[in-house]
Amino acid sequence: MMDSPVRGFPVSEFEARLKRVQKLMAAEDLAGILLMTEPEVRYFSGFHTQFWQSPTRPWFLFIPADKKPIAVIPEIGAALMRKTWIEDIRTWGAPWPKDDGITLLLDLLEPLSIRGSRLGIMKGHETSLRMPLGDYESLMSGLPGMELVDATDILRSLRMVKSEAEIEKISHICNIASRTFERANEIFYKGQPLAEAFRAFRMECLAQGADDVPYLAGGADQGGYRDIISPPSQRPLQSGDILMLDTGATFDGYFCDFDRNFSIEQSDDLSHQTYDILWRATEAGMTAARPGTTCRELFHSMQSVIAEIDVQGGEVGRYGHGLGMQLTEWPSHADFDETVLEENMVITLEPSLNYGDGLIMVHEENIVVQNGAPRLLSMRAAPELPIIGGR
Amino acid sequence: MMDSPVRGFPVSEFEARLKRVQKLMAAEDLAGILLMTEPEVRYFSGFHTQFWQSPTRPWFLFIPADKKPIAVIPEIGAALMRKTWIEDIRTWGAPWPKDDGITLLLDLLEPLSIRGSRLGIMKGHETSLRMPLGDYESLMSGLPGMELVDATDILRSLRMVKSEAEIEKISHICNIASRTFERANEIFYKGQPLAEAFRAFRMECLAQGADDVPYLAGGADQGGYRDIISPPSQRPLQSGDILMLDTGATFDGYFCDFDRNFSIEQSDDLSHQTYDILWRATEAGMTAARPGTTCRELFHSMQSVIAEIDVQGGEVGRYGHGLGMQLTEWPSHADFDETVLEENMVITLEPSLNYGDGLIMVHEENIVVQNGAPRLLSMRAAPELPIIGGR
Repeated sequence: MMDSPVRGFPVSEFEARLKRVQKLMAAEDLAGILLMTEPEVRYFSGFHTQFWQSPTRPWFLFIPADKKPIAVIPEIGAALMRKTWIEDIRTWGAPWPKDDGITLLLDLLEPLSIRGSRLGIMKGHETSLRMPLGDYESLMSGLPGMELVDATDILRSLRMVKSEAEIEKISHICNIASRTFERANEIFYKGQPLAEAFRAFRMECLAQGADDVPYLAGGADQGGYRDIISPPSQRPLQSGDILMLDTGATFDGYFCDFDRNFSIEQSDDLSHQTYDILWRATEAGMTAARPGTTCRELFHSMQSVIAEIDVQGGEVGRYGHGLGMQLTEWPSHADFDETVLEENMVITLEPSLNYGDGLIMVHEENIVVQNGAPRLLSMRAAPELPIIGGR
Repeated sequence: MMDSPVRGFPVSEFEARLKRVQKLMAAEDLAGILLMTEPEVRYFSGFHTQFWQSPTRPWFLFIPADKKPIAVIPEIGAALMRKTWIEDIRTWGAPWPKDDGITLLLDLLEPLSIRGSRLGIMKGHETSLRMPLGDYESLMSGLPGMELVDATDILRSLRMVKSEAEIEKISHICNIASRTFERANEIFYKGQPLAEAFRAFRMECLAQGADDVPYLAGGADQGGYRDIISPPSQRPLQSGDILMLDTGATFDGYFCDFDRNFSIEQSDDLSHQTYDILWRATEAGMTAARPGTTCRELFHSMQSVIAEIDVQGGEVGRYGHGLGMQLTEWPSHADFDETVLEENMVITLEPSLNYGDGLIMVHEENIVVQNGAPRLLSMRAAPELPIIGGR
């Protein structure tokens, strides 16, 4: 197991995040932003727990225009929140369906409503409302003077660009997953049920130092796979299969997200050709990924290679995305996304294509955008489809 | 590794679920229910993937009053959805922020809106809106004639009572976690950083047959722990520590959720006494958990034992909850919850209490409510605080 980066962040990191968001808030004349989703609450507070797995309790973090964030959270989280840099922590005995934080939020927000202030909430692409809709409606009916403003773009612009400490965590988990994939020949074998291949991969990832493997999907079948988001079947790996695993493992709350393809003992020309196109599409993406390039341009740099055999380019809907506290983050490398790449954005390059009789192949790397060539965080996939289990 | 139950469900299971929900819908005069959260989409379709980890794309399942469910989903999920019993699958090339399924939903729902029909959506306790709020508002503004009805109680009443096949899956993962905890003396050792204890537990859980361990929290400190939702520190286990791990491992999409306490080499009288009270509180819960008992009564059966040393009973806010497709499900064993227990509800009994100088102790078992004494799914915790690592 490799040495790990320091866990958590210094308070200066949270101070810098707060300063940046408050500057953007001032430009939009926002009196505050109300956050309730795990990555956003964690981003500004450092509050990190798997307890979000339980849907029972809502959690809130309020970012004022000119003060430190205020936590409005269930009592069960108070001890953990007190370990963060947050000082103003308001709790209630949750679950309490009649009033799960609503009175506390009204106490906090009513003065803003009375002044007719603008309140930021996230309601745009890739967001969700992580509280009961009924409670949200009841909260807002108690704040009649408040002007609600979509704060998605503010959060998006902040979170897309990573700090050095964030990049170090993502780099570390990418290394762990790369080392795990390097052991493919030892982990995977002909006759192994796919579900056992997944299990072995998860265990090796943990042994290599991952905290968890929240995402693992893939497939294996003769000459290629047909679907890239399935849980594993019990079907044993066979000679001539192409095996793909796509993993989102985590270290200290940060994800890697990349996949690898392997052929079992042998493979056909079409698979080799398809793999080669994807490998070259990724190379094209690596060449295009520079500060100032748009995600649309990045998409087309990869699509121009994919178009050699597939005009559509798989069912994924994009050729990669942002990466960090979530398996997938803004932006999207797609024709619709005009986001301009900046230094220290961490992104995936993930071209995909349809080939043969209903087959799909995917290929993915994780990189940091920087001046000049991007920095690879994943260990670059082999330029030719690797064969494992051969004699 | 133990033999596993069959994965997935026969179509008859989904037919039965559909029949039950449509009966409840008829009683409420609902023309349909629109679902978008992972457990609900999976409950009625069998669509099972970890891809929900990505927040990028919304997924919808519409339950008509008298037909099979209709899937409105991103193209990337079509191949997997076609493996389920769902026939009417409508897809779009997601992500597509300008129209992420909204036009498809309007096509489906406009006839209902024109007729002034009642549409069920989930907006009650323990739910969230798993689509952008802005998209939801835009969808609903296109359905001016629709009467929205909170369908939370319908889903809750269905999902709380488990089928035999569901119980078999939960029982299996409870066995796996029980066998993992049985190996505590081999997995955990004095001097082991807590994070490594967590890692070893996760790996052993996988080795015993778990698909994944999405939830693992706990703590360890001299004489007891202070918080039950933290990720692990790097602090080495020491003689006199009390170590607690609380795990939500999964098999085929179903969770266990229980914890175990261990003392390292030695423990003090207060810890033993506290453990004993919790053990007896759980016994009281086991005695009370019968069909016809309310969750409030179940709570008070445990609270009457806890009250021997703690009138408040920890910060958890309840003494257990439902269990199944999620780590925590309705109901809550709390004073506010008047849910009447029924045969084949799977629940946790989870008394907790505060003691000493800011310490908390928890204790948890998983059971099936049945006629007569409940069936234990977790292997009953030792009646006395177990000591490990002793000589």
